[in-house]
Amino acid sequence: MSLLDDLSWRYAAKKMNGAKVPSEKIEILLEAIRLSASGFGLQPYQILVIENPELRAQIQPIAFGQPQVIESSHLLVFAAWNEVTEEKIDAFMQLVSETRNVPMEALADYRGAIAGSMLKRPQEAQANWAARQVYLAMGTALAAAAHLKIDSTPMEGFIPAKLDELLDLNAKGLHSVLMLAVGERDTNADYMVNAAKVRYSKEQLFTRL
Amino acid sequence: MSLLDDLSWRYAAKKMNGAKVPSEKIEILLEAIRLSASGFGLQPYQILVIENPELRAQIQPIAFGQPQVIESSHLLVFAAWNEVTEEKIDAFMQLVSETRNVPMEALADYRGAIAGSMLKRPQEAQANWAARQVYLAMGTALAAAAHLKIDSTPMEGFIPAKLDELLDLNAKGLHSVLMLAVGERDTNADYMVNAAKVRYSKEQLFTRL
Repeated sequence: MSLLDDLSWRYAAKKMNGAKVPSEKIEILLEAIRLSASGFGLQPYQILVIENPELRAQIQPIAFGQPQVIESSHLLVFAAWNEVTEEKIDAFMQLVSETRNVPMEALADYRGAIAGSMLKRPQEAQANWAARQVYLAMGTALAAAAHLKIDSTPMEGFIPAKLDELLDLNAKGLHSVLMLAVGERDTNADYMVNAAKVRYSKEQLFTRL
Repeated sequence: MSLLDDLSWRYAAKKMNGAKVPSEKIEILLEAIRLSASGFGLQPYQILVIENPELRAQIQPIAFGQPQVIESSHLLVFAAWNEVTEEKIDAFMQLVSETRNVPMEALADYRGAIAGSMLKRPQEAQANWAARQVYLAMGTALAAAAHLKIDSTPMEGFIPAKLDELLDLNAKGLHSVLMLAVGERDTNADYMVNAAKVRYSKEQLFTRL
């Protein structure tokens, strides 16, 4: 079963060897992230794909010195919308209209469902909802990377406010939520390479009703 | 590229036909969810796998009457921990120790990293962090279901407090975050079956630096 083999193969690499992942594979990974599900299909985030070594050197101290920030092939920063506005919903509905060749008027119910659910929430709750969609996209990204046999390290461990400042995210209405280092595991230096995967058993994790 | 084909094939089915997904496929899906990444590897959630039709009939009104709640083969409820306690961290470290055959003393740094990050957060922030890990697991689940050609509908649309009460989740230290209906799309009744997938373009979603 290749799916389970892939998911068993992946782990959060602690050391990478600096090898470049072929751009064809990176593009497939990005396409998989683009296809990720999200609430209402709204994709309330932007993703920065960083190769620039100087910029990554600036990010490393913000991420507590984690080596994968500079040892990876590409560093992805997942940044969520700070708020869900009427303008953003309208831009999305325009995209739906164009993609499906359906007039805007026919989408009134769909638009109403999104607006009714989102606009009444306080700004902080909108930002938190958007951040949760980033985690869903990260789940898609990790499964896709594993399928492509690209090593990857998802990272919560950085100071978001400092990263937002460095990348000027606030001016774009965004805030950083997660990073993903993609590259090649350093089989000699990473003490986790051969560590058994730790997971609760099916009996512990699932309840059948 | 089967990965992208699978992700393109999937969509949030609005109507299902009641067909049962073979239990071998369900078990692979659950195993994929079990293998999902999570912050610190802590898997701060439990998943209820519901087949019981009476229980699903009770859940349907809590989910605004969505038909997939009863038309699906299995309904999964993802419930996150309400808090991250010292006891839970210790139980996890015990699992790490047993799985990797490493004495607890050798895991002091790992334990310290988790405790240092999590225990100082207010309870609400712990619950929110746990809920975000559920979204990551959902991303894994959707990718796995697509690979298995199981239809699936992720659901945010339900009243969590009512579902928690029905399933007695609070007494277990849990709160419901997401549901996932898995089954078979009703190709005749689902108006979304042939709808084009709406996604922002790569140029809109990604910034290369």
